[in-house]
Amino acid sequence: MAKQDRAIRTRRTILAAAAKVFEQRGYQAATISEILTTAGVTKGALYFHFESKDDLAQGVLAEQDQRLVVPRRPCRTQELVDVVMLHAHRLRTDPMVRAGVRLSLDQQAHDLDRSGPFLRWVQVLDQLLDDARAQGELLPHVVPAETAEVLVGSFAGVQAMSQAISDYQDLPDRVCVLLRHVLPTVVLSSVLASIDLSRTRGAVVLAELDADAGADSRPALLERQPVG
Amino acid sequence: MAKQDRAIRTRRTILAAAAKVFEQRGYQAATISEILTTAGVTKGALYFHFESKDDLAQGVLAEQDQRLVVPRRPCRTQELVDVVMLHAHRLRTDPMVRAGVRLSLDQQAHDLDRSGPFLRWVQVLDQLLDDARAQGELLPHVVPAETAEVLVGSFAGVQAMSQAISDYQDLPDRVCVLLRHVLPTVVLSSVLASIDLSRTRGAVVLAELDADAGADSRPALLERQPVG
Repeated sequence: MAKQDRAIRTRRTILAAAAKVFEQRGYQAATISEILTTAGVTKGALYFHFESKDDLAQGVLAEQDQRLVVPRRPCRTQELVDVVMLHAHRLRTDPMVRAGVRLSLDQQAHDLDRSGPFLRWVQVLDQLLDDARAQGELLPHVVPAETAEVLVGSFAGVQAMSQAISDYQDLPDRVCVLLRHVLPTVVLSSVLASIDLSRTRGAVVLAELDADAGADSRPALLERQPVG
Repeated sequence: MAKQDRAIRTRRTILAAAAKVFEQRGYQAATISEILTTAGVTKGALYFHFESKDDLAQGVLAEQDQRLVVPRRPCRTQELVDVVMLHAHRLRTDPMVRAGVRLSLDQQAHDLDRSGPFLRWVQVLDQLLDDARAQGELLPHVVPAETAEVLVGSFAGVQAMSQAISDYQDLPDRVCVLLRHVLPTVVLSSVLASIDLSRTRGAVVLAELDADAGADSRPALLERQPVG
């Protein structure tokens, strides 16, 4: 394994350990030494990649950004639905995403700047809404930045409520209901009629991404469909 | 002061102290001894009113219920808006409400049943929506229980986002924008046109309640308007 591959792998191991410890203990109570033990790496390795607990938390928070990409759709409202539903699906299945969302809502993390994920999510949805507007999918009064903020804030609360009430079991249903309440004030009814808003949408998109990644790693076998 | 009045006052002092400590430390790190010191009461007094830390937290959570009442309105959608906007206003001004909301979103409070406030809020909004439906204010497809859940979940997230980004400075604006995104899919446009959805609505309703409470304590001066 090349030296760079090893470094990437070590960084990933440390982040996964940090995610686990932050999720179990919360930011305030988590310690670097517990993250070290969980990761099974040396102090030197950890400090090579991360300066501090804050830095580790920002690393976990930033991992969400890697997961904001979905296949491009002709209908940008569908793409927006896909981003949101995929995130809901990953909250139930991907410990790194769950840890990031919990950190961003950790009210006791006083010294940690938790605004980053909110602002980056708003940016992504704002861009998708801008594109949707350019394609004539939106109602005329919509202010994309405002709608993006409402969607990000609402999603954060709906997932917290789902966690408190059902430990995320009802999350896909709750997110569907949220979108069905907000999208009719944002997009044309003809757009609404054409998009897939079903509760399994997140799993469908993930399977599509996985199939695409599989195709990517077998370039000799089949030609990859362009997705971006 | 009658013995019962003293007991009510002591209970209130203890709850205020518990709210403060839970808000500062989070549920997990908070201790009964710190709540005792903050309240300045004896251990005997505290245990007379509350059995455990869990019991104290449930007491703080339940305090929100006392604050769910707004003056009755001919338009029940306005009453719903008033409940929501008043809650947003109190989140900025009432430490007990803030502590309750933070406790209900405290992800590290593993042993604490945090579903109560969510469920009670849903119940209140569900009832208001049922009444609104009976008066013909709702669009025909609306399922009041679903809409109530969306509103409660969304509100929880919008306030968390407001806290993370602006320490609640932009909360009234964010809640107005949320309601403007959801209500058009729920109520008739003629109802929308008649309700006050302005950002100062919470403060207006609180002033009204305060004036009413003042009138209540001066029964000889003016006759109290019925509100319920």
